[in-house]
Amino acid sequence: MTRIAEVRVTPILISDPPLLNLQGVHQPYTPRTIVEVVTENGAVGLGETYGDTDYLRLAEAFGPRLAGAGLTVNGLLPAVTECLAEVGAERVDNTVQAEGLRGSRTMAKIASSVSSAFEVAIYDALGHELGAPVHALLGGKVRDAVEYSAYLFYRWAEHPEPDEPNDGWGAALDPEGVVAQAKRMASDYGFSSFKLKGGVFEPAREIAATRALAEAFPGQPVRLDPNGAWSVATSLEVAAALEGVLEYLEDPTTGTANMAEVARKTSLPLATNMCVTAFDEVPEAFGSRAVQVVLSDHHYWGGLRATQDLAAVCRTFGVGISMHSNTHLGISLAAMTHVAATIPGLRYACDTHRPWQTEDVITQPHTFSGGKVAVSDTPGLGIELDREVLAKLHDRWLGSDVRRRDDAAAMRRVQPDFTAPMFPRW
Amino acid sequence: MTRIAEVRVTPILISDPPLLNLQGVHQPYTPRTIVEVVTENGAVGLGETYGDTDYLRLAEAFGPRLAGAGLTVNGLLPAVTECLAEVGAERVDNTVQAEGLRGSRTMAKIASSVSSAFEVAIYDALGHELGAPVHALLGGKVRDAVEYSAYLFYRWAEHPEPDEPNDGWGAALDPEGVVAQAKRMASDYGFSSFKLKGGVFEPAREIAATRALAEAFPGQPVRLDPNGAWSVATSLEVAAALEGVLEYLEDPTTGTANMAEVARKTSLPLATNMCVTAFDEVPEAFGSRAVQVVLSDHHYWGGLRATQDLAAVCRTFGVGISMHSNTHLGISLAAMTHVAATIPGLRYACDTHRPWQTEDVITQPHTFSGGKVAVSDTPGLGIELDREVLAKLHDRWLGSDVRRRDDAAAMRRVQPDFTAPMFPRW
Repeated sequence: MTRIAEVRVTPILISDPPLLNLQGVHQPYTPRTIVEVVTENGAVGLGETYGDTDYLRLAEAFGPRLAGAGLTVNGLLPAVTECLAEVGAERVDNTVQAEGLRGSRTMAKIASSVSSAFEVAIYDALGHELGAPVHALLGGKVRDAVEYSAYLFYRWAEHPEPDEPNDGWGAALDPEGVVAQAKRMASDYGFSSFKLKGGVFEPAREIAATRALAEAFPGQPVRLDPNGAWSVATSLEVAAALEGVLEYLEDPTTGTANMAEVARKTSLPLATNMCVTAFDEVPEAFGSRAVQVVLSDHHYWGGLRATQDLAAVCRTFGVGISMHSNTHLGISLAAMTHVAATIPGLRYACDTHRPWQTEDVITQPHTFSGGKVAVSDTPGLGIELDREVLAKLHDRWLGSDVRRRDDAAAMRRVQPDFTAPMFPRW
Repeated sequence: MTRIAEVRVTPILISDPPLLNLQGVHQPYTPRTIVEVVTENGAVGLGETYGDTDYLRLAEAFGPRLAGAGLTVNGLLPAVTECLAEVGAERVDNTVQAEGLRGSRTMAKIASSVSSAFEVAIYDALGHELGAPVHALLGGKVRDAVEYSAYLFYRWAEHPEPDEPNDGWGAALDPEGVVAQAKRMASDYGFSSFKLKGGVFEPAREIAATRALAEAFPGQPVRLDPNGAWSVATSLEVAAALEGVLEYLEDPTTGTANMAEVARKTSLPLATNMCVTAFDEVPEAFGSRAVQVVLSDHHYWGGLRATQDLAAVCRTFGVGISMHSNTHLGISLAAMTHVAATIPGLRYACDTHRPWQTEDVITQPHTFSGGKVAVSDTPGLGIELDREVLAKLHDRWLGSDVRRRDDAAAMRRVQPDFTAPMFPRW
């Protein structure tokens, strides 16, 4: 079997619309790290992960260590973890990090998130070497297309400065705006599940928007995700108001004990990408029945095999599984689609930010049909790197001082006194 | 990607020495089912599972359904389960089945055990098609050799009839015999972990044999497995007698509640291949901390991916993992070795019956060095079917009326009044 000849790690900045959440607003540009694993035969495998400095530094430090290694993934995470122990990570305050939207920031999560980019790239390269699609290397697809949901955001029409990117979607700050956004998502992409990012306004406003969605799309699944903004009492009030309306309620509150208390007192299933974000958080959460659906994310769970592992753990304990999304490009969408295709019992449409990303680093960005992405049967992930665009987005990174996602800082450009709220906000 | 052109299912009988256990004694010949998956390109993948009638009938019914299918495994178990619902299985009394040595007999376990043979064969065929070893298709090996333990049995020197196979190992019915057997295992195979199959004699005799082993091999791991023969009280007496002697105590008693009670009152880790034998048994057992080590078995857990799934579940809950063995041939030993090579955190030497099987259906049976089997890096499982031997063992099956393993019936040839004991025996 061929070995890895070279690894390239490229930081880029991609444009991002002014999407609102509990921690602030998305910046005009957000960093991503693109990984290329090149085999001795010249096959190239692609991976993608967070671009914040700690992740990038670790990826840059780890990449060269793969030269000469085989195209295998099972020993990757320990090796990345060892590398992180050597290079270290910045000490940051969890409460003011946009990363906090995916649970607490830990060294292990940084290592997993970086490891995942290399794992995906190695699978892609292996697929090219063997002439097999990545899903075949994961045991084979059990479906030919993966369903995604419309990821709705409260948002401004534009970023504050005139020369900043404008995607033309317009504002959505009330039920009418949210429903209009959902209708465009449904007509442009065919989505028939809808998730509203909440935690932005007081609960009554978000209940109203959620009800408006359910009325506009009768019989279609609707979800609400306030990123843990609410107390247990508020969570229960919202849950009571939305029973029979929501498919599931995502992270109404923070902490396993609080989630478990909410879960005991509502018939709504609770989903999470904050309460359970790593394997060591599973036993307590499952033992206390705090969550009914875990939203996997191959980035911070550690890759595609880890996502399958998580699915196995959930299946064993009768807990549902679906998929979370952060801002991502087509490399990750391909990876998400391949692994999702291999997971039996995936009953919920997966999340994707894709419609909000107008830039991509692959030559043929994915299209959605009926809300679904077809599972590619060509070798590897079935995508190709657009080197011109990669160079352009890397140049943007070189010419900018944006080195991490910081939604609170972006919000302060408009509200100078803004600070990310302490939990619970309401 | 190439597809499956043909599947061959061949029942065979292999010779087996008179090994004793709670349910009786091994028969002179025991059935196995050999599966060949042939691709359109003529690549052949091999699998192996139980040969008892229910398993064989299901394998024979399911095999033809794979013609035209792709070389993927994730949808296999549901398809086999559907097939089983159509062909049905014999209604049998769990208490008198040798199968009971691996927990309760369920339809799901029959389906998993048959599915596993096809899964292994598909992985082997896929490896040949892609030019990759099976471990690479499972994410890659994390070790170059897999350690096995010496599987010690109380046994007779010979089967009762003069023309029945005699392996020359001689009897082992007391501490001296067991230690002599262990010494030969150590010198012939290099094993440095030892497992005694107990539940044969009253506990005091087995305690004495276990102590004799620990004295003969100071500092080397020793285990005792009475197959659930004991009450909670007896289990605790034995555990107290063997604290500091055993690496772990395997299935001292039956049932999750009993195992949990023993676990609470001893410092010895409890291992199991009877209390936890399927994913749906995990939540209760882990929730009550009934077991500290799960002994996986790709046959009845449903295959190599399922074994990795089980390892992920165990890792998540801080439960150890190792590997159980029933009578098997080189196809299964290859499969066990490939999957074991991919599992991080495998801290215990795996079980194997291999030294007791003098016949094999592969051209180059595995050898052990220092108790380990090297992980093959050649395509597929790295083995080749010996068609002459297969034909000979199939002819033996055709000429015999042995259609299932029945240790109690074998014992009745010597003790006509023998019945498999009710649990607990002591």
